[in-house]
Amino acid sequence: MNVKAVFNTLGKIAVVEGVLLVLPLFVSLVYSEFFSAAIFALTVVFAAAVGGILMLLTQRHSHVIYAKEGFAIVAGAWILISLIGALPFKLSGNIPSYTDAFFETVSGFTTTGASILTDIERLPKGMLFWRSFTHFIGGMGFLVFVMAIIPNITDRSIHILKAEVPGPAVGKLVPKIKDTAKILYLIYVAITLLEIIMLICGGMPVFDSVVHSFGTAGTGGFGIKSDSITSYSPYCQWVIGVFMMLFGINFNIYYLVLMRKFKDVLKSSELWGYITIMLVSTVIVTVNNLGIYSRLATSSRHSFFQVSSVMTTTGFATADFDTWGGISKAILLILMFIGSCAGSTGGGLKVSRVIMLFKIISREINRLLHPRAVNTIHFEGRKVDEGTIDGVSHYFAIYVICFVSAFLLISFESFGIETNFSATAACFNNIGPGFARVGPTLNYAAYSGFSKIVLSFAMLLGRLEIFPIIIAFSPSVWKK
Amino acid sequence: MNVKAVFNTLGKIAVVEGVLLVLPLFVSLVYSEFFSAAIFALTVVFAAAVGGILMLLTQRHSHVIYAKEGFAIVAGAWILISLIGALPFKLSGNIPSYTDAFFETVSGFTTTGASILTDIERLPKGMLFWRSFTHFIGGMGFLVFVMAIIPNITDRSIHILKAEVPGPAVGKLVPKIKDTAKILYLIYVAITLLEIIMLICGGMPVFDSVVHSFGTAGTGGFGIKSDSITSYSPYCQWVIGVFMMLFGINFNIYYLVLMRKFKDVLKSSELWGYITIMLVSTVIVTVNNLGIYSRLATSSRHSFFQVSSVMTTTGFATADFDTWGGISKAILLILMFIGSCAGSTGGGLKVSRVIMLFKIISREINRLLHPRAVNTIHFEGRKVDEGTIDGVSHYFAIYVICFVSAFLLISFESFGIETNFSATAACFNNIGPGFARVGPTLNYAAYSGFSKIVLSFAMLLGRLEIFPIIIAFSPSVWKK
Repeated sequence: MNVKAVFNTLGKIAVVEGVLLVLPLFVSLVYSEFFSAAIFALTVVFAAAVGGILMLLTQRHSHVIYAKEGFAIVAGAWILISLIGALPFKLSGNIPSYTDAFFETVSGFTTTGASILTDIERLPKGMLFWRSFTHFIGGMGFLVFVMAIIPNITDRSIHILKAEVPGPAVGKLVPKIKDTAKILYLIYVAITLLEIIMLICGGMPVFDSVVHSFGTAGTGGFGIKSDSITSYSPYCQWVIGVFMMLFGINFNIYYLVLMRKFKDVLKSSELWGYITIMLVSTVIVTVNNLGIYSRLATSSRHSFFQVSSVMTTTGFATADFDTWGGISKAILLILMFIGSCAGSTGGGLKVSRVIMLFKIISREINRLLHPRAVNTIHFEGRKVDEGTIDGVSHYFAIYVICFVSAFLLISFESFGIETNFSATAACFNNIGPGFARVGPTLNYAAYSGFSKIVLSFAMLLGRLEIFPIIIAFSPSVWKK
Repeated sequence: MNVKAVFNTLGKIAVVEGVLLVLPLFVSLVYSEFFSAAIFALTVVFAAAVGGILMLLTQRHSHVIYAKEGFAIVAGAWILISLIGALPFKLSGNIPSYTDAFFETVSGFTTTGASILTDIERLPKGMLFWRSFTHFIGGMGFLVFVMAIIPNITDRSIHILKAEVPGPAVGKLVPKIKDTAKILYLIYVAITLLEIIMLICGGMPVFDSVVHSFGTAGTGGFGIKSDSITSYSPYCQWVIGVFMMLFGINFNIYYLVLMRKFKDVLKSSELWGYITIMLVSTVIVTVNNLGIYSRLATSSRHSFFQVSSVMTTTGFATADFDTWGGISKAILLILMFIGSCAGSTGGGLKVSRVIMLFKIISREINRLLHPRAVNTIHFEGRKVDEGTIDGVSHYFAIYVICFVSAFLLISFESFGIETNFSATAACFNNIGPGFARVGPTLNYAAYSGFSKIVLSFAMLLGRLEIFPIIIAFSPSVWKK
């Protein structure tokens, strides 16, 4: 392990976070929140100092980076930015416990949106901004951002990109990795701006429009009201619902649209799968909800919003879906695990993996019937190699085992199976709200410190697709 | 598809079931239940007639049997014996609805033990005997039994054995398949007799000892009292607890014991895994239960009994474990999925598959770190070939997808996630009782007819390890 290179990169990351923290500092000043501004200024200095010291200590290091260094950098970076990013909440006293502040910040960066705050409205604007801004930073990936702006990025850094961008197969859009990172970020920023404008046009205050667009873009789900999006107009709810859906789509699709390769867009099986699942779910939930919301327009709005919110792993709510019917809740629970498209800002297993799993199973059945026949799996118009197939089914196994382990660890809490199970699902898949005692009108405050740390790591495991965290914590990697 | 051979075998199976139905007829006579006796006599005649007609219609058929015929025979046989076996309950009026009677019989043959009966004590002895006898028949496998007794079994029938005996790799104990079937049944009967004797010695009435031993042997769980095993003496509870554990062990182990190959027994990783999981679970649950049962002896008895009952997928209860603490319930829920050893009478994923999944994951992590290193997986002292490894991870994927589908289908019921989820888990893994409204003191009566049929198929999918049922219902298999 090239320890020096790892810590040198972590140093750079701390400095970049320090720079990003200037933005909430500025927001605090705009709203005359001088105490918050001072806290942010302190954190900026601290982040810069930590970064500077790390870089100073590791000045002379080899630039050779392999897969394991990539994993260690990604895991280390996400833990480090959460540790630093939690400071403003703790130091300002808005979140008195550092464990709670860490939970809230991990939840922000991993775009989970699970909160321990019982009275969100009490928070200063600067803090609310920082809270939602972590979604925006974490959505496309902190390191992707760093790669887009930092000079001297070699193509070796593909290991970092691969470890941070979700999905079974991350490709480069263009030959140079730095350019890929830039294109991804430009698309990301452009769609976010479009949402902000459309929300302002619908009469949502500017501040609200910005933070909710951050929450949508990162598929995060932190809002600024205890009832999430419930009190905004139906227009605003439709806008956010549609944009959540858009941010759940593989960003390669947008790149293809930009390149005017519309035929390739229409040929994407993952896109079709994603839209089909979302549509079918919305229809069933809408019908099931007609008993609660008598008008079709209301029922379809709430149903689409919630399906989109849960499947993209955002977690905004316009209604208390915990009170919905059995089939609606079961569909939402399953959507939590399916998640969004690979290469989007959303979490979960990813639609492409689910499609692949079905193809693998169908091949397995064929094999039992015709043991000698040659069966290849095709996906997105290409033959899938056996390595990728194994990767998908093995990822599924490790995914389930991590989920079960996290569920077991938080089951020392006496909240009952529905709460603990859905809390684990909502954190591990980066959604936010679950059912029962962690339902959309409630929060994670009642969990013990131990459980909050377990759930924080569940969020990190989910966001980074497991391997970076496991590998970074394997002692064997750090030997020699 | 050799349709004639399939239906000819099904005919033989109906006749064998007719013969087996003479036993409850005899029990009814012993207890002077003449109405029940008449019903059983009627069913014997019906089964023989159905079998005779099927065999007559398919007299001239080719004996060539491949994998697909094996799957179709197994799936068809289990559905047929359940359809016929349900008749005594329906015709006698003890279970007025045929759907309910079918559910109860599938639950019996698949050794699930999920019941729709609200007042078990009301049933005549003959019916109770038949109900528990289905466990005994289904435990080791109906077709294994047929193979052991019917002449002219060719070694082609390995396809049937493979499709019926659980586990990733079924081997023949001895060169001839017929002898393997006989040895398995002899071990099975011997251990059951030992249990009957030990229960009688503990003061349990003879009838009770026999039916409870049937329930233990098949890892079924049907009792004859609404409170299951609760009202029997601690001695009897310990005996049943230990025997459940014994029936959850791979029967190959007993064959090795008979052959005096004790060293091979001690080298079995699956056996060690099984014992370790059971021991660790028992200790945690015992400690967690000290708040409910103040004495260590009581707490350890109930805890061991329930851990053994759930892990072996039996489903007997000495206590209402639905009222236990969060961690205890979480452990029981996870044990439901792990299940017993391959080649035992129990259900679930099987310990060997779980061990293999962990080995696969550990190799996957190693591969990410050292892409060029050669990694082979060893299990039970042998190198595992890649086909078996793929089989395990693909089975896991199809297992989860079947579970989720069944859960979704029964979620139209308004019972809440904990009930529906645990009901699906308890049926799919052939346990019986779940949590909340299907807890150990309750039953499945409240479910709709549709849900009962879904759960019946979940039991069949679980017992036959999915593929036979799916393949038998694929239209492509029946073409030409």
